[in-house]
Order: sequence, then structure tokens, then C-alpha cells
Amino acid sequence: MSQQNLEPLDVEAIREEFPILEREFDGQQVVYLDNAATTQTPDPVVDAMSDYYRESNANVHRGIHHLSQEASVAYEEAHDRVAEFIGADGREEVIFTKNTTESENLIAYSWGLNELESGDDVVLTEMEHHASLVTWQQIAKRTGANVEYIRVDETGRLDMDHARELISDDTALVSAVHVSNTLGTVNPVSELTDLAHEHGALSFIDGAQAVPNRPVDVGEIDADFYAFSGHKMAGPTGIGVLYGKQSLLEDLEPYLYGGGMIRKVTFEDSSWGDLPWKFEPGTPPIAEAVGLHAAIDWLEELGMERVQAHEEELAAYAYDQLAAEGDVEIYGPEGGPDRGGLVSFNLEGVHAHDLTSILNDHTVAVRAGDHCTQPLHDKLGVPASTRASFYVYNTREEVDKLIAALDDARALFA
Amino acid sequence: MSQQNLEPLDVEAIREEFPILEREFDGQQVVYLDNAATTQTPDPVVDAMSDYYRESNANVHRGIHHLSQEASVAYEEAHDRVAEFIGADGREEVIFTKNTTESENLIAYSWGLNELESGDDVVLTEMEHHASLVTWQQIAKRTGANVEYIRVDETGRLDMDHARELISDDTALVSAVHVSNTLGTVNPVSELTDLAHEHGALSFIDGAQAVPNRPVDVGEIDADFYAFSGHKMAGPTGIGVLYGKQSLLEDLEPYLYGGGMIRKVTFEDSSWGDLPWKFEPGTPPIAEAVGLHAAIDWLEELGMERVQAHEEELAAYAYDQLAAEGDVEIYGPEGGPDRGGLVSFNLEGVHAHDLTSILNDHTVAVRAGDHCTQPLHDKLGVPASTRASFYVYNTREEVDKLIAALDDARALFA
Repeated sequence: MSQQNLEPLDVEAIREEFPILEREFDGQQVVYLDNAATTQTPDPVVDAMSDYYRESNANVHRGIHHLSQEASVAYEEAHDRVAEFIGADGREEVIFTKNTTESENLIAYSWGLNELESGDDVVLTEMEHHASLVTWQQIAKRTGANVEYIRVDETGRLDMDHARELISDDTALVSAVHVSNTLGTVNPVSELTDLAHEHGALSFIDGAQAVPNRPVDVGEIDADFYAFSGHKMAGPTGIGVLYGKQSLLEDLEPYLYGGGMIRKVTFEDSSWGDLPWKFEPGTPPIAEAVGLHAAIDWLEELGMERVQAHEEELAAYAYDQLAAEGDVEIYGPEGGPDRGGLVSFNLEGVHAHDLTSILNDHTVAVRAGDHCTQPLHDKLGVPASTRASFYVYNTREEVDKLIAALDDARALFA
Repeated sequence: MSQQNLEPLDVEAIREEFPILEREFDGQQVVYLDNAATTQTPDPVVDAMSDYYRESNANVHRGIHHLSQEASVAYEEAHDRVAEFIGADGREEVIFTKNTTESENLIAYSWGLNELESGDDVVLTEMEHHASLVTWQQIAKRTGANVEYIRVDETGRLDMDHARELISDDTALVSAVHVSNTLGTVNPVSELTDLAHEHGALSFIDGAQAVPNRPVDVGEIDADFYAFSGHKMAGPTGIGVLYGKQSLLEDLEPYLYGGGMIRKVTFEDSSWGDLPWKFEPGTPPIAEAVGLHAAIDWLEELGMERVQAHEEELAAYAYDQLAAEGDVEIYGPEGGPDRGGLVSFNLEGVHAHDLTSILNDHTVAVRAGDHCTQPLHDKLGVPASTRASFYVYNTREEVDKLIAALDDARALFA
């Protein structure tokens, strides 16, 4: 790890761009540690969208008038900016969806429903988010394919021996989270993708918890498809991204039909337009694309290596503080390069919802629940966990407040 | 028509809330007549979204902490506000999608793909938008259903005798635009819905060009499904609405799978949550819902009857001005209650794209093309048309500028 050589983020300066972090409830300033659910949005991103509405708003698809030209250029350049950010070859490989979930479903419909057959295997992991797990399960039911799950071992890592067992010539797709939104585990997605390719299968990587927090290069991973969302990376709601290799996307049928994606329509039949528009029917998330572009500019100004170092440091600090207490069960790997910027845990004898409620009394905002990984929680043997997740504006002092607030829960449930 | 008794809109005051209307190109102020593509967004709507990001941003689904509570309430109340606005029975009947196109596709997948069979008829109109036409055409191809089109007569109205011929006991669905985005025709959607119901069929009404411009009551129409978008009604991009009768929506399978819409998930199977969340997997368009809520507040403050009267008046004025010239072909009904706030036309001897480009030299922003109704344009015998479409901030003087600019085109192409 070279993170020791990186200049740390100037968190104080960063926080000035997030007025929401000044919010107080009952006289206490909010400690926002729910970033894996959604991150906060800095002023430059909010302003970029407001400016768009106040100065350049129009529908896209290359209308002839000035405003439509401006809006079209802004919308198209947002694709270019995303492509550059994740190492895609160009805008043809970047499709804007409404969220990561839709990105998963797009491939499930456009590829899965058309290509999967009885006897095909779809290999997931036990730590998949419902966006992937439920989707492939339901598409498999329709097509007769089988879903298999790569085991999570007792350290919260994937059992790669099991992966090598499961991934076979029957495998049509391997779909895995890059960073688990529950365990924090950073998965060996290049290795999984190589395994898939060795057996002629495709790979889909859910990067919702990776792209916001670390440098990601889809070419380096060699993923066939890769998905993430704007609202988890300092950007707006209402926009997600699906990356796909151009050669693959060209061969896929669209799954949503409408205007802006067609070449020719008659009363009898239709043909499709060019990438990426083929997969973006109807009026797309234009202001949201402008916001996502601004969020990427903002993040790259910070530097993704520094963002990653900051989060790893906070997660390791939180892990150590929590682990030092004898009554906290933590899920997933210890702090370090195998863990992203979040820690899920349970305090002995206290339900996660009660704990989260008590933390909220201290204005510490964390998330309780199964974090859209119910089957994983079943396996862990708990109905829910409490998750603290960090972003660029969080501090050690905020982690300390979380730790201190646990004492209240202990006192109440003693 | 009671519009004579309505106090006219205070257009001057309205325009102050749209800084974009002050934009100049080459020293000339923009004349924005592309409202059927997207409307402009008033300051209170832009501010509502900015305030949301700066004060209350969090993920929804009833997280326990303060910010998530605030965001959840705002998101849920946006459903209530939409329900009230269109006369739905409650939030269970209001699903937020990404745009009207997705609303159409949702029903095409959740209902059409599961229920349509060989021999079933889907009855559309010749003036359908591609969002409906292409979608049902493709779903029909998959299911073996037939698509039939209700004829448009020479006045641009639906041939209702033909409708009565086509709609039979084989009909499974009648899907029609409420107001045509090309012809401006206001269709008899209650009558079409009654016809559908008499034969045991469902009705889907595409209200993208109706809800922004006139009072709409889905109960009065008795539509089973009804769709529209935020960005065409002074609201944001990135959000659409699907209204559906609760009893019908309850029986439908979701078509997108993911978090926030499930009741129980295991590695083997899943069950679904309550309406409307069953159809809203993943992080929904939260800020956009806040913006749509603000747009509805803003429109109701103006009064939808007055909005309708303003648009009818402008469209009739534009129609008359254009019709007075001997060399303009106008599509659709004359001005009056059968026409919404738009006029599509062609100037003799000038391609719509050239005309639109010349109009743009005068900073008159209109749209050229087939307006996502290619088959209708084929029927009209033209490759494209020029469409001027109006909203609450437009004036007669702006129509005059459009008319005056036509002379330039005449001079150039004489």
C-alpha cells in the first residue's frame, strides 16, 4: 500500500461544501455515517444541476435550437466523462440508467432472458446485494437456468476454491459485488472475471460500493459489464451507470422501447439506433448526468487514491475501536486493503434497530437492517446488523462519537 | 368552454421565475417554443431540489436516523401529492419510474409479457408515440399478440367508428395518447376506456402531453393505467409516473428486481413488498420526487384550468396565424377544445430541419423531426414536421416572432 505517501484529504475544507453536515437535531450536530446508503452532495454538484436548469435546460437527442444543442453536448459529454473515469473505451460503452438496480436488470433482460437456457449456470456470491441476487434468481426461474452461490468464508471473504469448483463450462455468467455493502469485503473481481472467461462465461461486476471509493478501471478488471450509481458518489439520485464492452452491447437487444433509441419505426416493426442511445429510450436523466459529471470532476480533484486511503483509514480505525470492546460482533475482514469504507456489526444483546435508534438519539446516523443482503444475514445467523459507512468528509472524531454512544445502549440494555 | 370567465395567467410574473427565458443568443432573447419536448423549470422547483440536497438528503425506505426519516417522509408525500393531483385513490396507485417510456414498459413487461397470448389484440392508435407503439409491437412479437391501430382521419382525429370495429372481445388492451404530441389532438380517452371495458380489456392512457396542460382526473377517465413525466410539467428530468388501479397493481408481478421492493429473500426465492414500493426497486428518484411535488404545487397555484385556457388560446392563435398563410400545411384539428397547446406544420418547399434551423437563427426554439411518431408521419406523407409547443410563460408576441421568421425561410428558399 502506498497510501502512507499520499497527502491526506483536507477534510475541514471538504466539509465546507456540505451544508447538510451542519444540521443539528436537539442541539447536536449530525454525524452522518450512512454513506453506503447514499452519500451527501457537495455544493458544486448541486450548483451544476441548478445552473443547468436555469441556463441550458432543453431536451436532448440533438434538437436544432441553441438550448437543445447545449443540453445535448452536456449530456453526451457526461458519458465521455464517465468513460474516462472508469477506463472505458468511449461513450458507446456507457449507458445511463436510473440506478445500479436497473443496470443489473438491463443485462438480466437484454442478455439473460434472451440467452439463458435450461442447464446454464449463473454463478453469484453469497454476499450479493438483492439487486443482483433477486434479479438473477427470477430470470433463472423464467429461463430454467440454475443459480449457484460462491461461499463466503468465516473471515467474510469469498472461498475462491469454491469459486473454482462452481465456475465450469456450464457457467453462462459470473456476477459479483466488487465491494460488499454489508461485509465491506473487497472481492478479487479480476480473478473472478478471468475464471469466467476461461470457461466462456461473461462477468458482471456490481461496483456500487467501489467506484465511489477507489480507483476503478474496468479494462484492468476486464469485466464485461460493470454497474454503479450517481447518488453513492457525491452525485444525484435518479442516475445509474451500466458499463458494457461495446462488442457485447452491440449484439444485445434493448429491453426498454421508446423514442430516442430507434433507427426506423413502421406500424409493423422497428430497428435500433447506435450505442449508447439504443439502451436509453425516452427523455433521459439530463440534469442528473450534468450532476454526475460534476461529481466526477469533484472526486478527481480530491484524487481517488486519497479518497480510498481516507476511507480505509477510517474503516480500520472503526474496526479496531469496535473490536477492542468484547461485546461487539463485527462482520467481514479486519481493516486493511481487503475492506472498503464501512463496518457492519452487532452489539451483544441489543437488536440492530434498537441500537441504531439509540445512536440516532446522539445524532449518529447509521443504518440498521439487512442492507439488502437477507440471505447473507441468514447465513450470519442474525436478522439485522448496524452499519457505519464513511466518506470523504468523515473524521476519527465522528467514529469516536459512534463508539461513545454505544455505552448508552449498553447502559439501557444492561 | 368556460375559459372566458377565468382570470388569465399573469405571464409577466410567471416569466420572472424562469431565468433561462432571459438567455440571449447573438443578442436576441430566446423564444422557447419546444415545450412538448421538455418544459422549463421555475426557480421554486429548482430551489426545492437544491434545498433537499443541502438540508435533508438521505436514502429512504424508512431508515431510522433523522435525515432518513425526513427524506422518507418527503419521498412518500410526493406520491400522495401526485395521487391528489390526478385524482388517484392514494400513494399505492402512484409508482415513480424514470420517465413515461418506462411507465409504458413497466406495464408491457409486468402485465403484457405475462398475460398476452397468441390471438389477443392490443389496440393502439396511429398517433401513438414510439414509447407506446414500439413497446407493444415488440411485446406482441414475443407473445404472439396482434397490434391493431385505430385510424386517424383527415382532420387529425381518431376515427371512432374504426375504434368500435377494432375493439372486440379479442382485445386485451387499448392504449392511447391522451393528447397527441404531433397532431395536438385531444382524444376521447373516456370513451376509449369505456369501449375497452365493455369488451373486458384494459386501458392504458399516455398522458405525457395532457397532465402538464389541463386538469386530469384518472378516476373520471376510469383508465386502468395512466402515465406521464416530471420534465414536461415544470418538474425535473429523471422521474416519470405510472398510475394504476390498486386492485390491478396488486396482482401484477414486478418487472425490475432489487432492494426496497421485497418482503423476504432467500437464496432460493423471493416475495414482494407493498404497493407502490413493489415496483420501485433500488434507490428511487428522491430529489426528483421532491422537485415533482414542488412543480405540482406551483402549477396548482396557477390553476390547471387557467393553464389549459392559456395554452388553448396560444395554440388557436398560432393555428390561425399559420393557416392565414397559403403555404403552410398544419397537421391536426383547428384551434379549440380538440387541440392541446402545440401546432405541427410544414412550410411548402422547405424541409422541417431547414426551417427549424432558420427559426433558430431568430432564436425561436422549435423542434423538427418526426416527434417519435414515424408511422404517423409516413401516413401524413412527410418525413418530418416543425412543431411549436407552448407553456404557461409563452406569449402572443412570441408566436408573432415565429410567424415573422417564416418570411426569412420563404426568402431563402424562394
